[in-house]
Amino acid sequence: MVEKPLDYRDAGVDYAKIDPLKIAAQRAARDTAANLLRTPYREVEASRGESAYVVDMGEFLLASITECLGTKVLIADAMRAVTGKTYFDAIAQDTLAMAINDIITVGATPISVQAYWAAGSSAWFDDAARAHDLVEGWKAACNKCGVAWGGGETPSLGGVVHADTIDLAASCIGVVRPKERLTIADKLKPGDAIVLLAASGIHANGVSLARKVAEELPDGYATKISDGRLYGDALLDPTVLYSPVTEALFAAGIVPHYCANITGHGWRKVMRHPRALTYRFNKIPAVPPVLAFIQKAARMSDADAYGTFNMGAGFALFVAAKDAERTVSVARGAGVDALVAGIVEAGAKQVVIEPLGVTFTDADMHLRA
Amino acid sequence: MVEKPLDYRDAGVDYAKIDPLKIAAQRAARDTAANLLRTPYREVEASRGESAYVVDMGEFLLASITECLGTKVLIADAMRAVTGKTYFDAIAQDTLAMAINDIITVGATPISVQAYWAAGSSAWFDDAARAHDLVEGWKAACNKCGVAWGGGETPSLGGVVHADTIDLAASCIGVVRPKERLTIADKLKPGDAIVLLAASGIHANGVSLARKVAEELPDGYATKISDGRLYGDALLDPTVLYSPVTEALFAAGIVPHYCANITGHGWRKVMRHPRALTYRFNKIPAVPPVLAFIQKAARMSDADAYGTFNMGAGFALFVAAKDAERTVSVARGAGVDALVAGIVEAGAKQVVIEPLGVTFTDADMHLRA
Repeated sequence: MVEKPLDYRDAGVDYAKIDPLKIAAQRAARDTAANLLRTPYREVEASRGESAYVVDMGEFLLASITECLGTKVLIADAMRAVTGKTYFDAIAQDTLAMAINDIITVGATPISVQAYWAAGSSAWFDDAARAHDLVEGWKAACNKCGVAWGGGETPSLGGVVHADTIDLAASCIGVVRPKERLTIADKLKPGDAIVLLAASGIHANGVSLARKVAEELPDGYATKISDGRLYGDALLDPTVLYSPVTEALFAAGIVPHYCANITGHGWRKVMRHPRALTYRFNKIPAVPPVLAFIQKAARMSDADAYGTFNMGAGFALFVAAKDAERTVSVARGAGVDALVAGIVEAGAKQVVIEPLGVTFTDADMHLRA
Repeated sequence: MVEKPLDYRDAGVDYAKIDPLKIAAQRAARDTAANLLRTPYREVEASRGESAYVVDMGEFLLASITECLGTKVLIADAMRAVTGKTYFDAIAQDTLAMAINDIITVGATPISVQAYWAAGSSAWFDDAARAHDLVEGWKAACNKCGVAWGGGETPSLGGVVHADTIDLAASCIGVVRPKERLTIADKLKPGDAIVLLAASGIHANGVSLARKVAEELPDGYATKISDGRLYGDALLDPTVLYSPVTEALFAAGIVPHYCANITGHGWRKVMRHPRALTYRFNKIPAVPPVLAFIQKAARMSDADAYGTFNMGAGFALFVAAKDAERTVSVARGAGVDALVAGIVEAGAKQVVIEPLGVTFTDADMHLRA
């Protein structure tokens, strides 16, 4: 075991290298908005840099997004050797969740999805049990979110994707109707409450690091964690789908002022909104055992762990203070535990996690162009 | 050099293995249509199995699609060693074209796109020249099609995607407005003319086989072909974007009865429509030198070549016979050469290419569930 803490660079993901391209792409993309002037439709400019792109279609707003699963399939394949299960039903839900949980951040009702399943060889599709689980898991996740699965792409990409694996992604379109349901731009303000929705585990972010941890363990993914489960098994708990919560909130007459899907960059994502505001937490949710295990095994400080993983908070809802407790009730009614965890304050852009003495500042995240 | 003809199985793509999964996925996807009954929106059922998924939004129809480039990036990387150019501006157009040329088949005006750029390592994004060409080429292609680039995903997928390459895909949404512009379902009929739009070369389909051919050539991609160009250079001519043609047709008052994007499966794609009809060609377009070269080098029969590559016909428009010549004029006015090449007849489902004595029957393609 090495002594220094693991970080994402050890695990092969260097955000400093990706982000400059991301920013160049965002700038170029912004320039193309003028193309819509030839149509009756107009871009909702505030959606630039947000999790989903939004276009004003006249009668309603249309949101769209493409999201990828990442490398979680590699854990599923490794665990199959241990337990014999394919886990691709869970993997399918994870992939859908990446798109669904992002598109709902703008206030959209997800309508339809497209599947992107790019295997490294035709032989990947030969494994009938795995293919069956992927198809049925995808369908089940669509049903949970009330979306139509419109179709997709199932290429075989030898030489691009490794032969024995698959690159999974999902695209989603959603509708913001009425337009007042849009949860970006100027609604967020000091005094708003922050309600955190419970995560099931690692979801699908920070997976490269979780894999690195497995490599250092004598028993790898078969290591038992504090709750008696196998490490790999716990990692493969599917990502929570949060659209039943946002739909239930809408039905209850609660329109969040902003939403943040807690994915890569962990709790740093809480300060995603472009305004300079302070997000102060006086409570934190219970940490899923698998994430507590990783933090310890990877010798991560709380700042490292909360800046990388969801640590039990999969999604943040920013709501009027008066709606905070009812938001928790509605979320629980939709099957997802929730916690009024903090408050939005005027002040420098930062996330202050008081119970841990951890603060993330604007300098900790450079995602916007 | 081996003596037997190359086919797709030699090149690592076995459609017989992919198609059963594709069909299972199509069936499961169809079952999810009922989810839309909870919304004010309804699926356009005839779009199932077509190139894009279509939902009736009330005021208009909304089309969506996700498409991948495939393995053409591997040719770009190989040719960079020969000429020093990255070719990723062309590759960007290819990727966009996969989505744009599919979504227009249903009669949609493309509105916005999402980029999916999944690299095998963070280091891929370090190559500033290549990253610049990808970003600028993507933007230029968006401008050619009049679409807004809404955003995208740029993950680093070590262990899934090969370290020195990238998996590129694009999602697109489009609008069919007025709804009568929908070019699927029952419009296609005997007597319709088939207008073929010129291809620039291989586009991005049949690329695995083109790579296999390069492996067998002593000079590989640096081999000169009949027009004096390098094989690899000609392969990297970007795919023609056909949306300027379909938009010009709409402006001219011509609504095609059906469209087929000629991609994988080559001219077998002409019989994509679910009806049993015969597609009889009495003319064929000029074959791009790079495709003629591949056919010869891979010792392919005409049936093999036309059943695999576009052979100069990148897109098929099925129009009322009275509109055929004007369709050609409008296409040329939009900068794409075209040819009235054949006619739709009552009869068994087949594609008859009379100048070559080649016939494809329904048994040659099993894509529908």
